[in-house]
Amino acid sequence: MSAEPPVPETRVLAVASHVVSGHVGNKIAVFAMQSLGCDVAALNTVQFSNHTGYRQWRGTRTSAEEIWDIYEGLKQSYLDNFDMMLSGYVPGAASVEAVGRIAKELRSRKAASPGDFFWVLDPVMGDNGKLYVADDVAPAYKKLLNHADLILPNQFEAELLSGVKIESMETLEQAIQVLHEKFEVPHVVITSVSLSHPDHPASSLSVIGSSRTSTGQARTFKIVFPCIDCYFSGTGDMFGALMVVRMREAVTNAPDADTLLQRRAWLSDDSVAAVDLPLARAAEKVLASMHEVLTKTCEGMEVEMKKAEATLETHGVTGEEERAKALHLLKSRAAELRLPRNVGSLRSPTIAFRAVKM
Amino acid sequence: MSAEPPVPETRVLAVASHVVSGHVGNKIAVFAMQSLGCDVAALNTVQFSNHTGYRQWRGTRTSAEEIWDIYEGLKQSYLDNFDMMLSGYVPGAASVEAVGRIAKELRSRKAASPGDFFWVLDPVMGDNGKLYVADDVAPAYKKLLNHADLILPNQFEAELLSGVKIESMETLEQAIQVLHEKFEVPHVVITSVSLSHPDHPASSLSVIGSSRTSTGQARTFKIVFPCIDCYFSGTGDMFGALMVVRMREAVTNAPDADTLLQRRAWLSDDSVAAVDLPLARAAEKVLASMHEVLTKTCEGMEVEMKKAEATLETHGVTGEEERAKALHLLKSRAAELRLPRNVGSLRSPTIAFRAVKM
Repeated sequence: MSAEPPVPETRVLAVASHVVSGHVGNKIAVFAMQSLGCDVAALNTVQFSNHTGYRQWRGTRTSAEEIWDIYEGLKQSYLDNFDMMLSGYVPGAASVEAVGRIAKELRSRKAASPGDFFWVLDPVMGDNGKLYVADDVAPAYKKLLNHADLILPNQFEAELLSGVKIESMETLEQAIQVLHEKFEVPHVVITSVSLSHPDHPASSLSVIGSSRTSTGQARTFKIVFPCIDCYFSGTGDMFGALMVVRMREAVTNAPDADTLLQRRAWLSDDSVAAVDLPLARAAEKVLASMHEVLTKTCEGMEVEMKKAEATLETHGVTGEEERAKALHLLKSRAAELRLPRNVGSLRSPTIAFRAVKM
Repeated sequence: MSAEPPVPETRVLAVASHVVSGHVGNKIAVFAMQSLGCDVAALNTVQFSNHTGYRQWRGTRTSAEEIWDIYEGLKQSYLDNFDMMLSGYVPGAASVEAVGRIAKELRSRKAASPGDFFWVLDPVMGDNGKLYVADDVAPAYKKLLNHADLILPNQFEAELLSGVKIESMETLEQAIQVLHEKFEVPHVVITSVSLSHPDHPASSLSVIGSSRTSTGQARTFKIVFPCIDCYFSGTGDMFGALMVVRMREAVTNAPDADTLLQRRAWLSDDSVAAVDLPLARAAEKVLASMHEVLTKTCEGMEVEMKKAEATLETHGVTGEEERAKALHLLKSRAAELRLPRNVGSLRSPTIAFRAVKM
């Protein structure tokens, strides 16, 4: 495992949820980016005991005013010198607007050197057709899209933002085109796509990415990888955090790095093909780390669940309903991503899945 | 740098402050423990934009009720299965009591296997003769001392807790004896001691540690190390976090590990000499990491401060008073511990300073 960080000194503002126990939101994103050498400012939008997938939790939310106030606190002490920003789960439209205002202000401070600020926006709204934020959140995100550099919606969120119903690889490409053209988003990666296609093996997932050309056209690649049959939480947050670092790394290592790093959104020349984009290099590395960590989490999960019976006995859980609830909680605990013991997979993953042209 | 964590799977509850930017409290402790392979539950007692050494900050405190509520949240979902606990800055006596109640409850759950829970208590109250908490905090800590396994006061805090005025190495040993005997504390480490002594070189500091015998007698060692002439924040928090991991590692690797790990506080047999204690091994490794990280921070600080003039110009800072304030802020920022880019120093430090008998 290399001790050398993969990126030059990088100061990132990470705005997302904090859970005391477990690994979602900023709890996983901050550690992932720090492990890869970034100086991370972690603005926590909630402090919950655990993630909401457990179906019960305690804690408090940070209000939109408090988010803005903390940002003002950073500003007054010269601590707003960010190279990048990552935003994840933000509770409610007012807070989404506050986060957007922060991003716009950080960008405007770099107006003279537009490559010196890069915003990765994960528009967390829902999954598998189910919205888990209020109705006014999607419109709030839509207004911010043209200020982001890279957005990371899942398939459902891409539908919500683009207005295109995604039912095939073709309609997915249409959605990306709308995000590039109408919403002026430079880079898009749609995560955990499960659409069928002749060259997708059974039980595989794919990630579809695109960096737009100077005329707003999509350059689309896909990476297909085996699906691990476990329900994990925090994978999107880990994906976003790793994309921050690996995108910066890929651009820094690109043959045209000097030019790229001066441009808004580090957008490659039109002559660069989809599979040669820094975005494709970054996504390959991120998926390699993800696959290793998820595989190890899944292995550990089996061991943990074998102990579940003993735990239920210690806690005197007997009734059928009570038992089902307890098993769900223990399963959620066992499925927490095992990042701290697998830092090697973050730093030096073995790239197993390559980007191909759509 | 080894990818193998130095400790077996260890689940730690860390209760301390969170700063959005910079590296103090849980912001540094959580990353340090995660980097060494621990599964850390981070209960944040405040969310401030930056540490208070900047002399200005924004953010909110977590109330004693909220701290307890989050703990209840962990408990109801089987997430209170902690092997160790680290408590640092806690705002106010009511919150100190809440944290103590949590520690006592976690300990009582392991009554049948007293070696399965270990509480490292850093009684953060002040430094250099200056109290920075309310007057009722010291009495609140005193009531909890006999429930802790290892406490990490600085010289001033050791005075407050023991009631012994520390003016020499002899009075410092008396204070330790009081902490062992009257307050029943198993292990004590007093950090950043600057008392003079014939065998202390000029501009050195020392750390004094002791694990009590079965009759409550001190077994005292000291480690002398060169003082780095910079004012850092967060060193105590980093020290505490690393002690959690290195104490567990030292006990796990001790020749009598099997016996030790079953005992309350992992206390060594009376026949073990001060310099052979697991506590001494742990402190040596922690100081090695600290010295490397502080040295690198100090080097980086000089580079940062050279850019300060340019920053003042960009921000249009001109007046004398305004300039002095800005320089203090920039100096505070430059002195933030550089941990994420020096993970190698955390994982595999070169041991340079050895424990000696007092």
